Amino acid sequence: MTVHTDTISIKTRGNSEAVNISSELAECIRRSEITDGIAHIFCAGSTGSLTTTEFEPGCVRDLKEFLDRNIPPTPPGPAWGEYFHHETWHDDNGHSHLRASMIGPDITVPVRNGVPRLGTWQQVVFIDHDTRSRNRELLVTVIGE
Amino acid sequence: MTVHTDTISIKTRGNSEAVNISSELAECIRRSEITDGIAHIFCAGSTGSLTTTEFEPGCVRDLKEFLDRNIPPTPPGPAWGEYFHHETWHDDNGHSHLRASMIGPDITVPVRNGVPRLGTWQQVVFIDHDTRSRNRELLVTVIGE
Amino acid sequence: MTVHTDTISIKTRGNSEAVNISSELAECIRRSEITDGIAHIFCAGSTGSLTTTEFEPGCVRDLKEFLDRNIPPTPPGPAWGEYFHHETWHDDNGHSHLRASMIGPDITVPVRNGVPRLGTWQQVVFIDHDTRSRNRELLVTVIGE
Repeated sequence: MTVHTDTISIKTRGNSEAVNISSELAECIRRSEITDGIAHIFCAGSTGSLTTTEFEPGCVRDLKEFLDRNIPPTPPGPAWGEYFHHETWHDDNGHSHLRASMIGPDITVPVRNGVPRLGTWQQVVFIDHDTRSRNRELLVTVIGE
Repeated sequence: MTVHTDTISIKTRGNSEAVNISSELAECIRRSEITDGIAHIFCAGSTGSLTTTEFEPGCVRDLKEFLDRNIPPTPPGPAWGEYFHHETWHDDNGHSHLRASMIGPDITVPVRNGVPRLGTWQQVVFIDHDTRSRNRELLVTVIGE
Repeated sequence: MTVHTDTISIKTRGNSEAVNISSELAECIRRSEITDGIAHIFCAGSTGSLTTTEFEPGCVRDLKEFLDRNIPPTPPGPAWGEYFHHETWHDDNGHSHLRASMIGPDITVPVRNGVPRLGTWQQVVFIDHDTRSRNRELLVTVIGE
């Protein structure tokens, strides 16, 4: 049994546009030389999420549209006129924090025969909910034998 | 420390009806002979989710009703007349992908004394969001000693 | 490679108010003497969630406000007059179960150099969705070397 620590560096466009990180993850697993176990990916930051989807433009746009309507940049009024987070920091990304907390900052996928064992059309995606482009470093931990 | 890989095969009815897989998970852990550690369960497919709930008919129906209203089979509003995923594949399960991405395709539970350490009324459930019955194979990884 | 099992005991106020458990988690990791790996935290109960956020009063209040509006204590009518869970047990926490299932009962964070590797303003939070104050025991499993 061994543990392999790694990172995935990506530049994002923000505003909840999903980025496919499956090949970068496969590369981390290859470097670990672990054949059977798990791979954990984590966003060290409170405005990013990890999940899976079928990575085709329709699904990516549906997810962004869903978030824009259900966790909008401006909260639905009248009683909740502005995100309280904005009052704290005079910031503009209260919805980014909400989206990240709801979807979650981490995901774990199974490793079998040295590769991430995903569905045929399933991809691991990082979603940057922040309101601007950012350079992100995702933390990867592969555990197994 | 050892790693044990296993699978849970189930036939689902789809449409976000939760299936209790707690006893199948307990069996995987028993086979692993691991007494302390974690058990990870993953759906290799982008229209299924794993989470926990109190598995009684009311909670199961509340979750399905909530999803039918908040991530409906037909998207709300004039501007978003059809899920974009449907335009890509002439498919009918755009909402299934959204539900799966929001809840997430994996869960990890603690293993103590050789059993999954859940709450008294807490069960591990697989939710198939697809629009038809499917045969699913969930991937289980138990790590510990 | 070793596995360390631990617990975090907290008293909560319920009603989806987030509690920052980052320092308690750091203490569990310190006790494990593991420098590189992962730490998994789980709520053994079906009305609690784990996620991360920037733990400042604005974000905490935004999350509670979002849940109160989108997964309210009384479901939106007219067809869904009462949560079905309430019919089963004459209980009042159907929304608590829904919130817990949607956010999820567990989280895993990376361990690097003997500490949880979070973002600068990112904290691990436990959210008790139940309708009353509770004493909770969260299960922590640290795996690595």
